[in-house]
Amino acid sequence: MTDMSDDRTALDRARDDFRAEVLDAGLLVDAGEPGLYGRSGVFDDLVDRIAAFASTGFAELGAERLRFAPVFPRREFERTDYIVSFPHLTGTINGFVGSEADHKSLVTARAAGEAWDSWLSPAETALVPAVCHPLYERLSGTIPGDRVYDLRGFCFRHEPSNDPMRLQAFRMQELVFVGDPDAAHEFRTVQCERQLRGLVELGLDARLQPANDPFFGRTGRFLARNQLADEAKLEVIVPIYGDLDEGTAVASGNRHGEHFGDTFGILLPDGSAAHSTCLGWGLERIALALIRTHGVDVAAWPADVTRLLAPAP
Amino acid sequence: MTDMSDDRTALDRARDDFRAEVLDAGLLVDAGEPGLYGRSGVFDDLVDRIAAFASTGFAELGAERLRFAPVFPRREFERTDYIVSFPHLTGTINGFVGSEADHKSLVTARAAGEAWDSWLSPAETALVPAVCHPLYERLSGTIPGDRVYDLRGFCFRHEPSNDPMRLQAFRMQELVFVGDPDAAHEFRTVQCERQLRGLVELGLDARLQPANDPFFGRTGRFLARNQLADEAKLEVIVPIYGDLDEGTAVASGNRHGEHFGDTFGILLPDGSAAHSTCLGWGLERIALALIRTHGVDVAAWPADVTRLLAPAP
Repeated sequence: MTDMSDDRTALDRARDDFRAEVLDAGLLVDAGEPGLYGRSGVFDDLVDRIAAFASTGFAELGAERLRFAPVFPRREFERTDYIVSFPHLTGTINGFVGSEADHKSLVTARAAGEAWDSWLSPAETALVPAVCHPLYERLSGTIPGDRVYDLRGFCFRHEPSNDPMRLQAFRMQELVFVGDPDAAHEFRTVQCERQLRGLVELGLDARLQPANDPFFGRTGRFLARNQLADEAKLEVIVPIYGDLDEGTAVASGNRHGEHFGDTFGILLPDGSAAHSTCLGWGLERIALALIRTHGVDVAAWPADVTRLLAPAP
Repeated sequence: MTDMSDDRTALDRARDDFRAEVLDAGLLVDAGEPGLYGRSGVFDDLVDRIAAFASTGFAELGAERLRFAPVFPRREFERTDYIVSFPHLTGTINGFVGSEADHKSLVTARAAGEAWDSWLSPAETALVPAVCHPLYERLSGTIPGDRVYDLRGFCFRHEPSNDPMRLQAFRMQELVFVGDPDAAHEFRTVQCERQLRGLVELGLDARLQPANDPFFGRTGRFLARNQLADEAKLEVIVPIYGDLDEGTAVASGNRHGEHFGDTFGILLPDGSAAHSTCLGWGLERIALALIRTHGVDVAAWPADVTRLLAPAP
């Protein structure tokens, strides 16, 4: 969600206050940069419990569980065109592959207080911006039929903020469908309703609404309008700062059409590109929305919420 | 561990074979770069169970549980001097903060098949090379007494390899002591023995031996010799490829002396720098060593091993 409020100061203050409240309660620890936190045991358990709750019913869908690392091949990052649409959120990785002489130069420059990045070079990897991105190249080729995946892991987005709802590194639970176009469309509709229902059951004042990704620049505004008009993206929105903004997205359901099928050569038995859909749960955002709703004392939350978030058996 | 074998070809073949065995069994999925894998549900559960097993007794030590993200402030990365000692393993992060015109240039260059990294600039973060590194700045100042931390998370090390035991992104469980020098020394000794005992209980042919970190270059060889002579680092070694190498480290115990206390200004009540010690468990390495030992069919492992790795209650 973008900040549409006229009153930036009040919104910023509200964010600072919520951030301070969560830090003071010891749920998160300031990790030295805007949007970076250490998680307490209580907060980390909560995230695990939310992920388990979000995953209810995945087994019945025949979802295959896969977990990828926080970094993935730069070559695959290239293929997604993320750097075209979301350059401002990108994180690529540099490493050092020079000689001992190069390293000596680096260390000398550094000791003189100079920047030393020029001795590094692009590594083979980039940070994962959405947990489904490392999946698609694995599916390259003809798939025998519809497939469903249960993915969870760390995402990186370079958007430093004082809002604790906006992290640079966060965990996302995804449910991904790859296959028939109509089934992909239907999957998003049905699962998005389930997603909303689950979050309402947890006591969140959640609503579903069409949304757009934060595409970059002028071309981006055009892409965003199209996405909105197509209802390609639905977000589950929860008010965190009252009327000061439009609320914060804590989950989403996205129709990719044939974007990934076409890009990564994922083909249906008839030779056409597979369609895909992903449902995403922002695990820290849901945890923080619950904390905002039920209080910082997680042990004192209403029994019916706690029961739903019982540790997995 | 370094590869000391005269017969590189046989060792490489053995690594390829083990890698193929683990991939064929569906435990890991090739994620497109050497040292990057997707984890199956079975493998991921196994890692969680090993982490829980490794953490046995942490509560009695009064360990505070904290979890950090896979990225941490570049400023803190700077302070650790990691780029001096381990440049070849480093991962720093670049992002895009340019204008729309800059982005247009980037996109044009990219469309022409040119490199586009020159339009990126260093971001505020670096990849975490060891899960205790994001902790130390949090402790800056005078600490009231000895403290123990339970940390777990993703580490990045840029060392592409065909050996499935050597990942670019992997999870590490750490137990960190910060405080009195003698107590820090004692903590390492006692906990390293516990660490070894636990891994032997799991059926691993494990032994404890002095070791050194893979410091870079000629100066690095000198540092490595000192570390070895001081027994500042002990590793739990398991043979994975028979006599073809010296075995693979799956866990370690490290005395840092006052390195981090001094660097990050962590002071004892008497004003002197706190000493620190960390015990590390390489969770994927332990999982793979267990698979090498007990077989790829995790459900068919010996009952006494499975019992120790029971899901946490």
